[in-house]
Parts: sequence; C-alpha cells; structure tokens
Amino acid sequence: MSKYSIGVDFGTLSGRSLLVNIDSGEEVGSCVHEYKHGVMDQFLPDGTPLGVDWALQDPQDYLDVLAITIPGVIKQAGINNEDIVGIGIDFTGCTVLPLNHKRIPLSFIEEYKTNPHAYVKLWKHHAAQSQADKITEIAQERNETFLKRYGGKISSEWLFPKLLQILEEDPKLYSDIDCFIEASDWIVYILTGELIRNTCAMGYKAMWSKKEGLPSEDFFKAVNGQFGNVAISKIKGRIQSIGTKAGNITAEAANLTGLKPGTAVAVGHFDAAGSLVGAGISEPGAMLAVIGTSTCHIILNDVEKYIPGICGYVEDGMIPGYFGYEAGQSGVGDIFQWFVENNIPNSYFQEAENRSLKIQDYLSELACVKMPGESGLIALDWLNGNRSVLVNGRLSGVIAGLTLMTKPEDIYRSFLESTGFGTRKIIDTFEDYGVSINYLVASGGIPQKNSFMMQMYADILNKEVKISGSPNNCALSAAIWGAIAAGTKNGGYDKLSDAVNKMSNVQAKSYYPCVEFHSLYNQMYKYYLQLHDYFGDLRNPIMDGLKNLMSR
Amino acid sequence: MSKYSIGVDFGTLSGRSLLVNIDSGEEVGSCVHEYKHGVMDQFLPDGTPLGVDWALQDPQDYLDVLAITIPGVIKQAGINNEDIVGIGIDFTGCTVLPLNHKRIPLSFIEEYKTNPHAYVKLWKHHAAQSQADKITEIAQERNETFLKRYGGKISSEWLFPKLLQILEEDPKLYSDIDCFIEASDWIVYILTGELIRNTCAMGYKAMWSKKEGLPSEDFFKAVNGQFGNVAISKIKGRIQSIGTKAGNITAEAANLTGLKPGTAVAVGHFDAAGSLVGAGISEPGAMLAVIGTSTCHIILNDVEKYIPGICGYVEDGMIPGYFGYEAGQSGVGDIFQWFVENNIPNSYFQEAENRSLKIQDYLSELACVKMPGESGLIALDWLNGNRSVLVNGRLSGVIAGLTLMTKPEDIYRSFLESTGFGTRKIIDTFEDYGVSINYLVASGGIPQKNSFMMQMYADILNKEVKISGSPNNCALSAAIWGAIAAGTKNGGYDKLSDAVNKMSNVQAKSYYPCVEFHSLYNQMYKYYLQLHDYFGDLRNPIMDGLKNLMSR
Repeated sequence: MSKYSIGVDFGTLSGRSLLVNIDSGEEVGSCVHEYKHGVMDQFLPDGTPLGVDWALQDPQDYLDVLAITIPGVIKQAGINNEDIVGIGIDFTGCTVLPLNHKRIPLSFIEEYKTNPHAYVKLWKHHAAQSQADKITEIAQERNETFLKRYGGKISSEWLFPKLLQILEEDPKLYSDIDCFIEASDWIVYILTGELIRNTCAMGYKAMWSKKEGLPSEDFFKAVNGQFGNVAISKIKGRIQSIGTKAGNITAEAANLTGLKPGTAVAVGHFDAAGSLVGAGISEPGAMLAVIGTSTCHIILNDVEKYIPGICGYVEDGMIPGYFGYEAGQSGVGDIFQWFVENNIPNSYFQEAENRSLKIQDYLSELACVKMPGESGLIALDWLNGNRSVLVNGRLSGVIAGLTLMTKPEDIYRSFLESTGFGTRKIIDTFEDYGVSINYLVASGGIPQKNSFMMQMYADILNKEVKISGSPNNCALSAAIWGAIAAGTKNGGYDKLSDAVNKMSNVQAKSYYPCVEFHSLYNQMYKYYLQLHDYFGDLRNPIMDGLKNLMSR
Repeated sequence: MSKYSIGVDFGTLSGRSLLVNIDSGEEVGSCVHEYKHGVMDQFLPDGTPLGVDWALQDPQDYLDVLAITIPGVIKQAGINNEDIVGIGIDFTGCTVLPLNHKRIPLSFIEEYKTNPHAYVKLWKHHAAQSQADKITEIAQERNETFLKRYGGKISSEWLFPKLLQILEEDPKLYSDIDCFIEASDWIVYILTGELIRNTCAMGYKAMWSKKEGLPSEDFFKAVNGQFGNVAISKIKGRIQSIGTKAGNITAEAANLTGLKPGTAVAVGHFDAAGSLVGAGISEPGAMLAVIGTSTCHIILNDVEKYIPGICGYVEDGMIPGYFGYEAGQSGVGDIFQWFVENNIPNSYFQEAENRSLKIQDYLSELACVKMPGESGLIALDWLNGNRSVLVNGRLSGVIAGLTLMTKPEDIYRSFLESTGFGTRKIIDTFEDYGVSINYLVASGGIPQKNSFMMQMYADILNKEVKISGSPNNCALSAAIWGAIAAGTKNGGYDKLSDAVNKMSNVQAKSYYPCVEFHSLYNQMYKYYLQLHDYFGDLRNPIMDGLKNLMSR
C-alpha cells in the first residue's frame, strides 16, 4: 500500500494542499483555496480604513485553507487518511499575528475586530518603516553583532518592526498580546497544539541566530523603554529547526482537516527557504533560483561565512546542519512584464496572435536569431532596485547601446540577459568567498516556460541549469518535510537524502552552456560589470539624485 | 507695383520654387517638383547595379525643377515676370557632378549613360569612405593646417573623397572631367553662364578657406600621384562669397524658366548654411537650430575661433564678413520617430485616435503633467551617434533611471529632454569659447508643431526660443539672397539687414524660460553631463566595445 504526505503552501492570495506519493514523488492531488479577504490594504472588512503601506490578512482565511483543501486533496486522490504519514507547512513571511493569553488571534475577538493592529501583518506590510529605521539606527549605535548578518539593515517587513509599530501606535492592544507569532508557526500550533518557532523564520526575519539567540533586553530597551522585555513577553514558544517534527495532529485538528489524529506534523518554514528539497537539493554545491516576478537565490554552506552584499544567512535556516544563504534580484519577471505592457507595438501582438504564440514566446523567437551582443545593447536589471549584492533599493534600470535600428525584441532580450548577468554577479560573489556552486536549479513558472532564457542563463553562467519539475515546488517541498517529520518507523523517512531522492522533481532535460555563446556573453558581462560598478557606486550621485528629483 | 524674388530650394527628393514679395515677405506662390529618378542607390535607370553605400541623382531632374516650378509659381501668383528682381538657389551638399570640356554633365552624354561615376554623387553617397580615410591620414601625417578647421577628419561625403573615388575606380572617366562642381553652382551656371564656386560649399565641403585657399598640389600628390593637379584641372571657376551676385538670367535660361533675361541671380549656397536670413538672423548673437530628423545648428561670429568639437567653420560661409559655424546633433526627430514606431503600446494609439490627436501630441499631453525630473529618467541622445561636440558616430543611446512605474510618455519626454540637453552642451561649448548666443531661433516642422518641446528647450537653455515662421525657410532665405543679388537699383536690396527686416519670417510668439523649470532642468543637466562625459570618454571602452560586438 502506498504512503502519502501532504504539503500545504500558504501564498499571498491563496493556499494549496498537495498530496504526494512518498515513494514515487507523484503528485496525486492538488487543491487550492483563495483567501476570502485576500490582501486588505485599504479597508478592514467592516470598512475601517487602513493607512498607506498597510497590508493585512484575516487568519480565518488560513483556517479555511486547512478545512477545505486538505479534505479536498484526500477526496481527489481517493485514498485513505491512514496512508498519510505526515504534513508540512510553508508560508509567506514575515507574516505575523498577535494572539491573546488563550492563544486566540486578536482579530477573532469581538472588541478587536475593528482594530487593524489585531490582524495579520502580511509580509508586504510596509507601514513599520520608521520603526525599522529606529531599530537599525540603535543597532548601529550599539554596534550590535546581529546587524552584520543582515547586511547592516533591518527591514520594515520583519517581525520586530511590525511589533514595535503596534507598541507605538496602540499600547493597549500591545499589552493584550500574549504571543506575536509567524503565521507558519500558528498553523502548526493549530494542527498540533505545540507552540514552536521555526529557525527559518526566527533567523531570517527575527534577528535570531543559533549561536547568539535574540538581541538583548538592553538593546530592545534602548529602542523603546516599553520594548525591553519583548522577547520574554511576546516571543513565546520553543525554537526548533526546520526539518524536525513539531508534533501530531490533535483530535481537534483531525476534525478540522480530515487527517488522522496522530499524523506527524513538521515544523513550519518559509516558502522559498524550505523549497530546496523539492528541487532535489539536500546539500551544498547547488543554487536554487526561484524565478518569478523577482528571483530568490538559495544555497547551503557547511560553515559560516560573511559575504558582503549577501543579506541574511541562518544556521538551520533551510536544512538542518547547514548555513542557509539567501540572495535576490528585486525585479525579474516583472521587468519582462513591464516591458511587454509598456513598450511593444501593436504589430507584435497581432503577429503573435496570428501565430497563436504568447507575446513573450514571439519576442524570444525574434530575439534568438541574433548572436549574443549583436544588438549592441547592455542593460542593468535594476528597475525594482538591487537586492544582491548592492543592497540598494534606490538604484534604477539602465539600458545602453540604443540605436535607430534597435528593435523591441533586442531590448526584450537585453533585459533577459541583464537578469542573467545579475545572477552571475551573485554567483561570482558567493564563489569569491569560497561557496562553490556547481550547477543551478531554476524553479517557478518562468523557467518551465522560457527555454530561451534558461539556455541563456546556462551560457552566461557557464553552468548546467536544471529545471525544477513540479509546478508546485514549495508545496512539494513541504510534503517532503512532512515525510521527514513522520520518520521511517511511521512510514516516512529518517534520512533527508532518501526523501529527496524519492520525492523531489527535477526535469530530465538540463541546459548546458555553449562554449561560443559563453565566450560572447563573457565580453558582455565585462560591460555589465562596468555599468554595475559605475552606477552602483554610492559615491556616484546620479541614481540617488534622480530618485531625489522623482520624489521632490 | 510690388516686387518679387524667387528662392529655389533643391532638396534630396524634390525641388521647390517660392515666390516672395520683397516688401512684405509674403509668400505668394510655392511650387514643388519631385525628382523623377529620386535617389538612385541600387540601380541606374538602365538597370546598371550600384555598389553598397552609393547614392546618385540625375541632373536632368534639377533642370526639370527649374522648367516646371519657376513658371509654376509665376502663374500661381498671377504676376508679371518683370516684377521679379532676383533669384537665389540653395541645394543639398556636398552634391557634386562631373562636367566635360563643353560644361555638359557627363551623364547627359551617350557613352557615359551606363557609367555610375558620370552621375551626380548625392550628399549621402558614402562609397568614398576609403578615399576619405586616405585623405585624412595623409593630412594628419603632413600636419596639414586645414585639418583643424574640420575637427581632424575629412568626411566621405565631401568633394575631394568623391572625386578621388572616380580617379581610383575609373581613371578614364576622371580624365574626361573638365570640371567637378557642386550642383548648387551648376544650377547657377545654367541660369547665368557664369562658372562660379560659392564660398559656402568650398569652405564646408572642399577643404578651402578664404585665408589659405585649397590644399597644396604637394598634398594632393601625396594622396595620389595622379591627383596632384586636381585643383587646377578639375576645380575650375572663380570663387565668390555667398551674398554676392553671380550674374543675370541668360536668354537660354529665360527660355527654360520663364524669367526675364537679365534678372539677377545670386551665388548658390547650401540649404541650412544659407538659411539664417529667412529666420531673421543677419549678425552674430543668435543661433539657428534647423530641427528635423537631425538638428543642424548654425551661428555667426566676428572672428575666427577654434572650438573643440565644433567641426567646420568658414569665413563668408553663411553671411559675408562673418565666420559661419556649424554644429549638429545626429539624431533628433528620428529618435522620436523610432520611439513612436517601436515602443508605444496600442492603447496609446487608440486613445490618440479617439481624441483625434497625433500620437506625439498625445504623448506630450501625458508627459507635460509631470515636473522636470519627476520620472527619474535621464537619457543620452546618441541613437544616431554624436556629431557635436564629441564627433563620434560610434556612440549610442542610453537611458537611465528606469523603474517598473516608468510609462511610455516618461521615456518619450526623456528623449525630448535629451535633445535639449544636447543642444545646451553645444551652446555651452560655443559660449565657453567666447561665442555668445543670446537667443535661439528654431526652424523646421518639429518646432512649429511641438510647443511642449520648444518650451522645454527654452527652460533647459534658459534662453528665449523664437520659431521661424515659414514652412519653407530655406527657399525663403534663397529668395532673400536673390533680392540682395538684384540690389537697390534693380528693385532689390543693397543692405542685408534691410532685406532681412522686410522679408524674414519669425513667429510673433516666443518661448521664454520658466525660472523654476530651468532650475530643475539644471539639476538634470548635471546628470546628463555626467553620462555624456562618462560614455563619451574615448578611454571608456564600453560603447566602442558594444559596437564591436554588434559588427562582429
């Protein structure tokens, strides 16, 4: 009899359960539920208006995902819940909510229903910028060691700025918070009754490290007199590594989900950080690039290394026993989307339609006729700022080499290339600091659809590029963590490499670099680096000056 | 009884006669004739194929312009030819043709009809590049003083490279040439029987100066042993300044044109260089910008000044008694055209159509809502290379500051601005060398149609911008020169300023700089200059490298 595991992937607008055969890796059921309240960025459900840069969610929507999609996939696959050995949860992050002393979300309580601070602050809630700035500033003044792990800057998206915002704006509600928790950990609590904080969220978004723990009480007190005991009073729960078991499905959770009581539940994790395993990676030597509107690069290393411009590395953050590094490009798919929406004449759309091609495929078809460099263009992929390795959101895009002969497909290709060069710069930086990367695994919809771009990446990077095979790699990875949580004696796996070998999904076809193209791209990369270093230099006033003119 | 003058403007594809009332400046008749053979760049009329970069014309087409358009305007205006006091001729240049010892164009002679070298070499005939390179190289080796007047480089478009091409490729035909002459001077010869070479053509395109004359026999001999006596043997005719009288209409010419025998004929000139007068400029202090696909800047100065990056200045080249300077931007209107054709989504065209606006006007309307700098973009206007002041055709366009919020109208505006900044750089260079420019007069279709751009130019330059009023400023200027050729005693003018006062055409409405916008554009200009100096620096390998990759 086959055994199965479930991965539940909580995204920004919906949640998905994926049911996976743990022997074959086959995805036998997949069920999505869209959040009823979506992202609340203007009003609460009752009409209470929200401020600029707010982004909230209703935790009831997450419970609905459990209640609808888990029974949904079980039914879809026609299996018995006895054959489900484990479940794993991944979530966006930092996506945090306040619980009261009964561990109930404040937004579920009548008196708080009209208070925006009672709701989930979604990862892209950016209204805690002044709090983030204050935390950064105090940490700089005090030379806090944690700062270096994050490239010297604390983001408004992270846990403590969001919590400090509540303290500053609504001290009464703040005092009623018994526990401020990642949604990933809250879901695990709902399923198991165990209050556990995962090392992935703690490390990447809560200034915690395995060696140093959280910042000191002194530090928090220096930020705000009322914030000194924040760690003890609000960050309750035991910290556990990703890849460990959180507990078992309770009777109540069984009732909610249709899972058997006692089913193993893995510690929660963030979507991208935990998703190496679905793409076949369980040890150092490969980089996973999750390519979507932006790209997230994740990679393991045996030892701790400080790498300039790579912000955020966490021990046990991705796979137990390794340091997990994150890097990123702030704009990738959304640059192509911007270009297609704003810069393509109608004749191209008509021809694409006549030939039943997507516009991107038509542009690729036109662009690929030329040799690398033949259009004479070089671009910087900074239309949404630069995350790695310059860590500067005020940078902007550049294209050089325009002539009257430049065609839309030339510019399109140049932007594709620029994201490849950006990836190469990140890889070069890792390798300069001794983190070796033998090949790239690309996951996401773009890699599966755009073979022109993936071949280009192989040529630019001079590395094999593999493609993650599952359209739901995050959920697949969560299911792998679920099988690990179960362990061999409960029908799952003890060894991660075994689970990955059986369950991961990588396409048979790899892209291999072409020597001639790599040599041409090398010449172009020289110019990319030149522009990168010129425009990225903080002493160069131009990009900051242009932004100042913009916001004047 | 009113008196009239005729200006005949020979363009690249057609010729136009304009009949002007010399008291009021009123244009009372205008008649165009398109050249039957247009530009021959692939075949002769009999099918003889042409090489790459060839561009020829048939001189018969020019005679047809005289025979059709001069009677045409006279008839149109319903006046008596007795009331026409003079005629002036302007032409593209360097546009040259070979005559035999009877002063007949070789292409009119049966034995040469199938020989491409017998035809007019149009200004944009670029097949004499190797000859131009050779002339430049020998001149550099010999430290020839004339080289400095042309920025160190002789263009393939000029007279001697074109003539040397004939010598090298068809020595027999070369030996049959008795006179190699600008089309402007040939037309004057046709009208008057006088073989005169105008200082404008000689100075700008034939390495001649009033002080030094033509290059020496030694120099020409060093270029090619058979080329030593080229000046004496092929450049026959007396040299006369623009603004002087060439002669009178002969009986034969009267027969051809319907003009009265004895009517005064002005010395010929090039279209742009001779066109200050129609735009109201007869002395130093103002710059005329002829804005079309590219922009030609022309300006007078009292004394000779060498200005780096400004190629080509000629004493008596534009107005007698002054040094005439030319500068230019290689791409202006054609950048906007390129942008509109290649980079605008269909929704913009539809909205423009719905509102019965031209696409450019619709883009201007959208763009003008923002303050200068508000889009955060800065561009370099080098999509067709840079003529002044960098004199480098291998440069290409750049745009920096792109974000995911950048709209097509932002980019459109940024390109408009870039041409304004390019003009400012040229003006700054003149002023740095003591040539002062109090205001700008813009002529051409774009200035008359694009008031957004003209206000932007005033704001960027911090100068009044006047707009030339005539849609045919070159022909109007030629008519003014015709009235000057006639002189007061024949019903025309002796003093140029009198003719200009009466006959020139400048719109009543000027554009004046706005202090606030000028201050913002000043900040942007700083960044324009930074990019200009960075990308324009010959030690910076990037633009040349990109071109090398292109042509690999």
